[in-house]
Amino acid sequence: MTSFDVTTHVRTELLDITDKVKDAVVQSKVASGMCFVYVPHTTAAVTVNEGYDSDVARDITEALSKLVPHRASYAHSEGNSDAHIKAAIVGSCQAIPVEEGRLALGRWQGVFFCEFDGPRQRRVQVQVIGK
Amino acid sequence: MTSFDVTTHVRTELLDITDKVKDAVVQSKVASGMCFVYVPHTTAAVTVNEGYDSDVARDITEALSKLVPHRASYAHSEGNSDAHIKAAIVGSCQAIPVEEGRLALGRWQGVFFCEFDGPRQRRVQVQVIGK
Amino acid sequence: MTSFDVTTHVRTELLDITDKVKDAVVQSKVASGMCFVYVPHTTAAVTVNEGYDSDVARDITEALSKLVPHRASYAHSEGNSDAHIKAAIVGSCQAIPVEEGRLALGRWQGVFFCEFDGPRQRRVQVQVIGK
Repeated sequence: MTSFDVTTHVRTELLDITDKVKDAVVQSKVASGMCFVYVPHTTAAVTVNEGYDSDVARDITEALSKLVPHRASYAHSEGNSDAHIKAAIVGSCQAIPVEEGRLALGRWQGVFFCEFDGPRQRRVQVQVIGK
Repeated sequence: MTSFDVTTHVRTELLDITDKVKDAVVQSKVASGMCFVYVPHTTAAVTVNEGYDSDVARDITEALSKLVPHRASYAHSEGNSDAHIKAAIVGSCQAIPVEEGRLALGRWQGVFFCEFDGPRQRRVQVQVIGK
Repeated sequence: MTSFDVTTHVRTELLDITDKVKDAVVQSKVASGMCFVYVPHTTAAVTVNEGYDSDVARDITEALSKLVPHRASYAHSEGNSDAHIKAAIVGSCQAIPVEEGRLALGRWQGVFFCEFDGPRQRRVQVQVIGK
């Protein structure tokens, strides 16, 4: 398993980490299998979505913020319940196939770290399983 | 890794692909492990849910469309931001256990391809890992 | 693959199953790989989120219930369409890395069984893959 750092700059954003995940797959020397991108945080997530037009990432963060508002009558006292809820909705692990030693993303797909309670220094773990 | 095509017929629907996933598991000759159903698209997803009463699939698509409306003030100019957002919520990969050489779904579970921007010709990839 | 039972006590709750998942990983004797926690039900789910302050789990269940109300004009006649929809949003499988023979959760992370149509007797399956 390898890992890398991600620095986020605002409270809520999707950061394209595709190249770092691709590098981890090449380093793993696995020819065929699955790559797992894991976020060890409880107010962030990971997803695969369009990597070509950055407006898509913005639409996703804004839609999630409409569904789960930052300020509401939450029980948790740290003021970031919305971030925990968004993390539960999007998910903390993304699985992606590996073929011929490379990350087998679809044509328009990129891998995104989802920051819901930044800005922070974050960590992403990548595990590749196969042959 | 194997793959198969899916033809969707309307803009938003859940299509039962359980039999095709089961076939891919049998072909893999893996006795015990995990099956990964991956969607290489950014406006579609995959999930496991009730396969017995098709009303459940309809309730899921309608509830998602209420949460994420087709027409709203999105940044992305292609008119399908709702589909990208739904894909981020439902997810592009579904993992399912494999036992005794077969897909180990729960009694009422089926595997569904989630079309959010159809109708289209789509592709589903299946990777099975184990022994 | 191993499995264990979970008894839920109300209609909607998040139950901390971290210790049982940790035990399953130790029993698997896998040193490095991935752990998959799978829910074979269609009105329940599994997620990783904060395990320290139980208010977070309550905020997650309440936020989901606001997004997907129990009573609405659903097609499915069993009165639990909300539970099926929440299961599709949160997901029926959670992948977590395994390192040095142990579940490699982040510092604040715990594993939660998500009951959306309880109280019931439920089952959780754990598959660990690696070396």
